[in-house]
Amino acid sequence: MRVVVPFAPERPKTRLAPVLDEAERATFARRMLDDVLDALSALDRERRVSVDPLVLSTAPVDCDAPVTVDERPLTEAVDATLPSDADDDPVAVVMADLALATPAALERLCEPNADVVLAPGRGGGTNALVARHPDFRVDYHGASFRDHREIAHEVGADLAVVDSFRLSSDVDEPADLVEVLLHGEGSARDWLAAEGFELATDDGRVDIGRNTGGS
Amino acid sequence: MRVVVPFAPERPKTRLAPVLDEAERATFARRMLDDVLDALSALDRERRVSVDPLVLSTAPVDCDAPVTVDERPLTEAVDATLPSDADDDPVAVVMADLALATPAALERLCEPNADVVLAPGRGGGTNALVARHPDFRVDYHGASFRDHREIAHEVGADLAVVDSFRLSSDVDEPADLVEVLLHGEGSARDWLAAEGFELATDDGRVDIGRNTGGS
Repeated sequence: MRVVVPFAPERPKTRLAPVLDEAERATFARRMLDDVLDALSALDRERRVSVDPLVLSTAPVDCDAPVTVDERPLTEAVDATLPSDADDDPVAVVMADLALATPAALERLCEPNADVVLAPGRGGGTNALVARHPDFRVDYHGASFRDHREIAHEVGADLAVVDSFRLSSDVDEPADLVEVLLHGEGSARDWLAAEGFELATDDGRVDIGRNTGGS
Repeated sequence: MRVVVPFAPERPKTRLAPVLDEAERATFARRMLDDVLDALSALDRERRVSVDPLVLSTAPVDCDAPVTVDERPLTEAVDATLPSDADDDPVAVVMADLALATPAALERLCEPNADVVLAPGRGGGTNALVARHPDFRVDYHGASFRDHREIAHEVGADLAVVDSFRLSSDVDEPADLVEVLLHGEGSARDWLAAEGFELATDDGRVDIGRNTGGS
């Protein structure tokens, strides 16, 4: 299956500014992209799901998959990749900041044979989807999960929803780094740990702290 | 399977104080408990998983399941319900604030035949588990998912982790109400909607708003 991975290499992950400077945010975003591509590659290799990855980037990026540069906003750029004819092959769209994605979680996205498959993101988003219906279109602004559910209904597409914590966990804010440290299995988690990030549980609630070493 | 549902009816859900007053929080917490019990009942009735529910409450509560009152802290009260002998039956523990729990999600918790099954909560918690090993004990303080993983390893119990967005979504903070409004299917969601809560997406990000009517 064609799997489109949207990526914006310029000034990524601004909501992580309280804990990572601009260069660190760029590095971390790139690690997450690499992890998603690695998970897709393992899905193809180990689980017999044919995966044909395409990074849909707002600027050139050198990575381990073919890249198409499209400077348009996310919704228009993704729409241009979706099937538009009943004979077109299905297309999956998987966000580049799913640092917890594993081959097993991505396999579950590909399993339902529905016209539209949605994996909700926390906070109303849509972190991954599969489109098999020629009239389905995306709208990533606002509560996209609700909108995608409605769009599927309007075009007469049957819908499946994948119940995955891993796919629901996109990484936008400092609190999301807790999930990466606890459940991540890839290079983004390793990079955070090497940069001194660790869980902090002093008051019984879980947060992140950063051990900057120092001397 | 014996399924223990811990519940604290006194002053519940204090972190929802910015949006719900004390009486409302008590009502909402109770609706979530009822929804969890309904989902367990449907699991037993519709999906051939034998469920023997027990509400483990810090004070008497009148609900649609047997109740044991135990005033001790959560960890001790739950530990007292777990299997302590190799011949004991397995015990599941499902938190009372899983407003998104469905029979299908709970069925996935019961499927793995591992000594210990964990369903991570967002932010490092453990929202549901199954214990089949006589030496496994809980520790709900701090990053309990990490601690439970370590305890399972220490006692030589094999471990399975259930990847469920629904089971990861406990409801503690106002932002969590977005998930209830979008994905909830029970009385807690209906109550929120009847109280005027709705999604607010004015700036492209998703939040909750409350329409208090008024005249």
